[in-house]
Amino acid sequence: MIIEGKNAVIEALRASMPLERVLIAEASKPDRALDEVRRAAGAARVRLDVVPRRELDRVSERGAHQGVLAVARPFSFTGLDRVLAATEGRASSLLIALDHVTDPGNLGAVVRTAEVVGADAVIVPSRRSAGVTPAAWKAAAGALAHVALVQETNLVRSLKRLKDAGYWVAGATEHADQVAWDAPLEGRLVLVMGSEGEGLSRLTKEECDFLVRLPQAGRVGSLNVAQAATALAYEWMRRTQMSGA
Amino acid sequence: MIIEGKNAVIEALRASMPLERVLIAEASKPDRALDEVRRAAGAARVRLDVVPRRELDRVSERGAHQGVLAVARPFSFTGLDRVLAATEGRASSLLIALDHVTDPGNLGAVVRTAEVVGADAVIVPSRRSAGVTPAAWKAAAGALAHVALVQETNLVRSLKRLKDAGYWVAGATEHADQVAWDAPLEGRLVLVMGSEGEGLSRLTKEECDFLVRLPQAGRVGSLNVAQAATALAYEWMRRTQMSGA
Repeated sequence: MIIEGKNAVIEALRASMPLERVLIAEASKPDRALDEVRRAAGAARVRLDVVPRRELDRVSERGAHQGVLAVARPFSFTGLDRVLAATEGRASSLLIALDHVTDPGNLGAVVRTAEVVGADAVIVPSRRSAGVTPAAWKAAAGALAHVALVQETNLVRSLKRLKDAGYWVAGATEHADQVAWDAPLEGRLVLVMGSEGEGLSRLTKEECDFLVRLPQAGRVGSLNVAQAATALAYEWMRRTQMSGA
Repeated sequence: MIIEGKNAVIEALRASMPLERVLIAEASKPDRALDEVRRAAGAARVRLDVVPRRELDRVSERGAHQGVLAVARPFSFTGLDRVLAATEGRASSLLIALDHVTDPGNLGAVVRTAEVVGADAVIVPSRRSAGVTPAAWKAAAGALAHVALVQETNLVRSLKRLKDAGYWVAGATEHADQVAWDAPLEGRLVLVMGSEGEGLSRLTKEECDFLVRLPQAGRVGSLNVAQAATALAYEWMRRTQMSGA
């Protein structure tokens, strides 16, 4: 992944996103943001090269570098096999699957929640899904380095595999009949969260063992996907700790 | 409040922040963002004036208007008296107090949670606290128009008044001995959340009837203040609904 522009590069460096190197165009006019790029790259011990502007043009993907870009290390996704091997035989394990959540800040916030509640992985589809961008690293506040992130081509097929491995699949949707504290949010559980705009897709919903909603007392709203994931994941954690699992 | 710059004005318009009017500098070079300001102002039925640039310079607070600014309507805070009158005699009422939370996105997200769980107000101190900015409106997703936001000069004094009115004051901190599901998070409750960097201040903590933490299973992290507020507010809601209050 190529990160383009001073502000995005600063955000990536501050969020400890793993970067291969930072490129700055020769003869760039000094300014405060550029100073901050240099300072943050030094603090993060990331290699910084001053190169001809045409080199940035060559590396750039979007032509938006404004004289500064960073080359990120490829993100290390974890394979589902490895998650299944690590959780085999455990009475209690939480996985959070995101059904085409497209906002990187939401992806990062869900990963942060996953780390805090002790979930074993976050699963995302490889298409129409938020990337592991600087904004995701920022929202994850360090958790992306600790939680297994699994990228799957076909989420429905992955859910089938997880059911075969003894997981219950819970789909979170406002349209569910069952509220969180009446639903079996415990044991080996895959919590599937829908996209910001459209919720769970039909095919995903059909693959769920049960649907669950958070009760709402207000007039306007629903929570965003990261807040809803937090409330549901804590309900799983509460049950798990209560039952001593 | 003056909102300066195309992107901030677009964000304010999209988030339905109540604006008095939008000013655009005469002879501005047309571009996509400017078109979007015009379109969004039209859709939100906000008055749009094209005026000499010196008029924007005069109204500007930060000199950052880049040819576009918006004048927001003063935000209507609710008085604590009014909240106390509305909740008097009720066995169950949740208030969320923010002890110097400075990120407007976090303020907005907490207001969104407050609306969804049916809290009666969010209370913020008037100093060293996030403003009701376009980012707050965006994160609140409509809820700022429905939840009472109370601004108090002295949060500790407000907590005393609330205790006199029969509220229990719970301070959320990672350093608490008691975890959320063992603590009396029910009935008439003020949930006090600390700032992003420093948590609860000493004086605020001393005013709390009890301290409470969310259990954490991870290695790195804690939740952000809005996620933590969501998990704790849902625990209050669960108890309240279980007890039939």
